[in-house]
Amino acid sequence: MNDNISNRKEYKDIVVALDAMGGDHSPKIAVQGACKASLNNDFKIFLVGDKAEIKKYLDKYKHDEDKIQIVHASDQIRMGDHPKDVLRNPNTSIGIAAKIVGDGKADALISAGNTGAVILAATKNIDRIVGVRRTALATIYPTHNLQKRKDIFSLILDVGANVHNTSHEIVHFAFMGNAYVQAIKGIESPTIGLLNIGSEEYKGGEVLSRANKILRSIPNINFFGNVEGNDLMKGLVDVVVTEGITGNIAIKTIEGMAGSMKKVGKIAFKHNVLWKMGMVMLAAGIKKLQDITDFETYGGAPVFGFEKTVIKCHGRSTEKSINNALVLAAKSVHEDMSGTISRSIANYEHRSGLEEIGREVNY
Amino acid sequence: MNDNISNRKEYKDIVVALDAMGGDHSPKIAVQGACKASLNNDFKIFLVGDKAEIKKYLDKYKHDEDKIQIVHASDQIRMGDHPKDVLRNPNTSIGIAAKIVGDGKADALISAGNTGAVILAATKNIDRIVGVRRTALATIYPTHNLQKRKDIFSLILDVGANVHNTSHEIVHFAFMGNAYVQAIKGIESPTIGLLNIGSEEYKGGEVLSRANKILRSIPNINFFGNVEGNDLMKGLVDVVVTEGITGNIAIKTIEGMAGSMKKVGKIAFKHNVLWKMGMVMLAAGIKKLQDITDFETYGGAPVFGFEKTVIKCHGRSTEKSINNALVLAAKSVHEDMSGTISRSIANYEHRSGLEEIGREVNY
Repeated sequence: MNDNISNRKEYKDIVVALDAMGGDHSPKIAVQGACKASLNNDFKIFLVGDKAEIKKYLDKYKHDEDKIQIVHASDQIRMGDHPKDVLRNPNTSIGIAAKIVGDGKADALISAGNTGAVILAATKNIDRIVGVRRTALATIYPTHNLQKRKDIFSLILDVGANVHNTSHEIVHFAFMGNAYVQAIKGIESPTIGLLNIGSEEYKGGEVLSRANKILRSIPNINFFGNVEGNDLMKGLVDVVVTEGITGNIAIKTIEGMAGSMKKVGKIAFKHNVLWKMGMVMLAAGIKKLQDITDFETYGGAPVFGFEKTVIKCHGRSTEKSINNALVLAAKSVHEDMSGTISRSIANYEHRSGLEEIGREVNY
Repeated sequence: MNDNISNRKEYKDIVVALDAMGGDHSPKIAVQGACKASLNNDFKIFLVGDKAEIKKYLDKYKHDEDKIQIVHASDQIRMGDHPKDVLRNPNTSIGIAAKIVGDGKADALISAGNTGAVILAATKNIDRIVGVRRTALATIYPTHNLQKRKDIFSLILDVGANVHNTSHEIVHFAFMGNAYVQAIKGIESPTIGLLNIGSEEYKGGEVLSRANKILRSIPNINFFGNVEGNDLMKGLVDVVVTEGITGNIAIKTIEGMAGSMKKVGKIAFKHNVLWKMGMVMLAAGIKKLQDITDFETYGGAPVFGFEKTVIKCHGRSTEKSINNALVLAAKSVHEDMSGTISRSIANYEHRSGLEEIGREVNY
């Protein structure tokens, strides 16, 4: 997919804007993550938020001064605030970070803040890829990795930026997920599955059966076919595409179950000495259980549809996950992920257009 | 909800038709379950299937002869067969069992066979409740029982008889689930939740936000509000209502995760002595894990929308679960579950009709 018009950037020329005030432990965790990333990478980081507060933590942690710059923002959106506040208030950290990216002063946006505010700030400030009708929120989730990939994570989108989608929008999601896995995992031809009610091609009503038909017909997409709810954890495919409502409910169901499994483990561990000994003996088994229920090791989840990379991190992000998100964002810029998405969708829309014209001529 | 026109039946007058050939271990398991049920209950059972085969097992297991009767069927639908074969072939066990129920010779239908064939056989032979536009397939699933009910199970419907549904159909599902929990669990005012993308009333697009609005307005429904994917396992409500596609994907996702948790346990147990000891020490914790991942202790899941009770058992049903399904079916007849559903829907449709007329007059 990386053709000659690819717009790859050298790492030293890449700048990532990090909303330092988003997330449960801001700005401490954001600053820690940025400091860590600055020591091991060539790209630069803008830390956007309250200058005094950021400086306080920056003075504490070892970092490369040449790679980190503070951009002051006097205000911030908190988890409980209405996402729309970001449109009313010009001084929020996420708003200013998105504006820097939109203005071309940075290449990627990262925030662990309020998801709605991140999407709105991006929508207001960053151009949408031509031809993209709906942005999509993706989630990376852990699987049993039946494909035996290097990591155990699959990508699922959309998980709630939309409720219902058209077949064409679901096809766009496939291009987005495809470009992401190519850029981030270096897998040349990622497998794509369509979340559905059954494995048969005709299943799932008009939108899904049509999406299945189109996905089968696209030469650049390695379409696996339909996947069902009980396939999600298996890791049969690299990317699962779905309407927003089904993706949202599936991923929250997995998170809910993973949470209850972890709780059982924690209760067991605290309960008494016998249980604790049992847990230690079972360590390897428990580790396996934790691996497949751990959403936090991965850096963050992309918001697709913009000309620049946008990564939403979990509110409970750690130093490690912020560091990972920064590396992920820089890599997606280096590999020109947005350019790949843009070209795939342009080609597809062009081809669809020709087919429409073809049909009209035939009648 | 049990008013004077209720049509309750004494247990001694109730007959349940059991498709003895459906399921992975038929007819052995079906016969065993029926034998067990005959010893502890007053209702009667028709075992429908190959007479010679059924007789072979019936001679083996202790039972009450007065309560079991064989009805011969020379053929059967196997798991791999096309469900529509049941319409073409008049001699299948599920087809004949459904006909017996439709003709009024039995009050309830149970099968552990091919789900599609069970629904088609019921649709062909048993009258639909007046006003019901779509039948619904329900599943009972285990939860953390946050409501502290006597058992840990919640009911979710539809889980795949439909793909998309209207708001009115989802409201019908609420009446169905409500009547089931009243009849089977004896809970007077079951809590009902609407599976959605967020907790806010306006969420989930037109169909779901309208369903939320209607459900809030119905006095006989104890509507909890929206529940999200991560709420499902908590057991916040007795009944979860949803469009077929989201219900199907949610329940299969839970089954898939439960399966993977069980696998980890089994691997741990087989692996080595240390792990085995660990498992024994953790027995209580593991038991808790198994309880919330065990779908098999419950008898079976109802197919709603017919004037008679229809219960679909899991293909891997055991003697215990067939016995439980028979008891469940008889109880639903005794409590006039179908009559309750029928009256609720008639009242609702009547009220909606009046409102429509009211609106027309206003314009």
